[in-house]
Amino acid sequence: MSLITVGSVAFDAIETPFGKTDKIIGGAGTYIALSSSYFTNDQKIISVVGDDFPNETLADLKSRGVDIEGIQIKQGEKTFFWSGKYHNDMNSRDTLVTELNVLENFDPIVPDSYQGSDFLMLGNLAPAVQKSVIERLQNRPKLIAMDTMNFWMDIAWDDLMETLKLVDVLIINDEEARQMSKEYSLVRAAKVIMAMGPKYLIIKKGEHGALLFEGEKIFYAPALPLEEVFDPTGAGDTFAGGFIGYLARTGDISFDNMKSAVIAGSAMASFCVEKFGTERLMNLSQDEIYNRIMEFVNLVNFDMEQVM
Amino acid sequence: MSLITVGSVAFDAIETPFGKTDKIIGGAGTYIALSSSYFTNDQKIISVVGDDFPNETLADLKSRGVDIEGIQIKQGEKTFFWSGKYHNDMNSRDTLVTELNVLENFDPIVPDSYQGSDFLMLGNLAPAVQKSVIERLQNRPKLIAMDTMNFWMDIAWDDLMETLKLVDVLIINDEEARQMSKEYSLVRAAKVIMAMGPKYLIIKKGEHGALLFEGEKIFYAPALPLEEVFDPTGAGDTFAGGFIGYLARTGDISFDNMKSAVIAGSAMASFCVEKFGTERLMNLSQDEIYNRIMEFVNLVNFDMEQVM
Repeated sequence: MSLITVGSVAFDAIETPFGKTDKIIGGAGTYIALSSSYFTNDQKIISVVGDDFPNETLADLKSRGVDIEGIQIKQGEKTFFWSGKYHNDMNSRDTLVTELNVLENFDPIVPDSYQGSDFLMLGNLAPAVQKSVIERLQNRPKLIAMDTMNFWMDIAWDDLMETLKLVDVLIINDEEARQMSKEYSLVRAAKVIMAMGPKYLIIKKGEHGALLFEGEKIFYAPALPLEEVFDPTGAGDTFAGGFIGYLARTGDISFDNMKSAVIAGSAMASFCVEKFGTERLMNLSQDEIYNRIMEFVNLVNFDMEQVM
Repeated sequence: MSLITVGSVAFDAIETPFGKTDKIIGGAGTYIALSSSYFTNDQKIISVVGDDFPNETLADLKSRGVDIEGIQIKQGEKTFFWSGKYHNDMNSRDTLVTELNVLENFDPIVPDSYQGSDFLMLGNLAPAVQKSVIERLQNRPKLIAMDTMNFWMDIAWDDLMETLKLVDVLIINDEEARQMSKEYSLVRAAKVIMAMGPKYLIIKKGEHGALLFEGEKIFYAPALPLEEVFDPTGAGDTFAGGFIGYLARTGDISFDNMKSAVIAGSAMASFCVEKFGTERLMNLSQDEIYNRIMEFVNLVNFDMEQVM
């Protein structure tokens, strides 16, 4: 089924204990689209870049089946740029530079050919921008998922609450869930957040996996225990891309299939962190992805037939 | 199959954000024995208490099928006492009081009737004391598991390394694994620690579950997402008790059965934290345990038949 991805297509510069990059390709929209392109070739993206953004990268997305008609190229303007430095434990980072540039006045355009899409994935952006995309779709998609972050909770709470009422799945991390709900227990946090609108909630816990909630139901997806996290940038977006891509591929939005989609997202995220930026996501084979998913199956599989 | 549990039988006084206890029954040996008593009634305990320790508690252990012949009662001496206060997030605590008392010169006695036991669980104690129990067994048990803590890494490293060479399974938490291995990544830490002796390693990650390692194999057991952790005291020992009790019940020490044993331990630990001290472990029903284990099955169960 068809998928619309909304999110930044951008430049990043990253420093980790393992090294440092110059300006490389980044952005939530890029990671989501790359990741979901392994599951669906019926994907359309909505974003904005400046005239400094390389045509090859746009061509690359196109070659992966991503319709880029919805990427506005602003002449005379610069692409969004973020630079950050990770600490030794890779669990925290400092933002060194944020240049909003074209994102400052981003007014998303939904091309006519995008109308009628089945799935909508709203990457992290101002909640008002996310909402405007929903409003510009003539028919409500079968499923709308969104990401957000602490920053919007701090400066655009009311917008966030309005947007949240319109979506089906919210995907955030544990720290964000705690801030949003003012609850420390993630089970309690989930209840508070689902009462704000979304029927499903995914709480990402980094190296500790992810939790999927629907009402009283909970699913716990592990993260693959890794020897090394080389660069965590984009892992959350890559997770979201694998998740929504898997749903778009299968067309099944039951809780059971969402569990599988969370595993697909976790598998994709485990690739993302193996190299800097989007590098590892550029040339995965279907076999590599299949084998990685099987690693997750083996990781959690147990049989309690002998019990009691 | 028969199990020997070695560990402190003691008094605790606990303060959490939910309340405060007077002196209550605690100790690693107590938690382990109570927890494993739900899986096996062929259990023997080795410990030491002072003459201030209540007979009813010893009778209670006995009524649960625990042979207490190996508990020395030191006349004119006092039982080990620990007091601690948990912080708001329940993930860290301050030790307020540690009175070693009878533990200071604990010289474990192995009664003749304990000889020939199949399983040995060494709760957290001085590594030299743990080692002396192994040396006093005429036949090596089928499986020896041990717990330890940072404290012994700091003050008794050489003893710890010697004891570690004699055991099959080491059960520690993530912080301890990092200190022991000097590696941040738990996958790397596991390799370093298994090279020190134990064939199997379990790393407990509290609310994030537990990892079981054997060579290149890894199993990830989730923790049950809880609304409230009332008192984490003894959760690690309760985990160990469920783990070793399940192995003793089934008599199967394959990696596959160890995975099930880790789930059994996780289920028992999830009960432990629901009330202060040992309270919740005193009156569980087999149905409650069965249902809790089924919650774990449902929590991680997924089906990727549709993939790729």
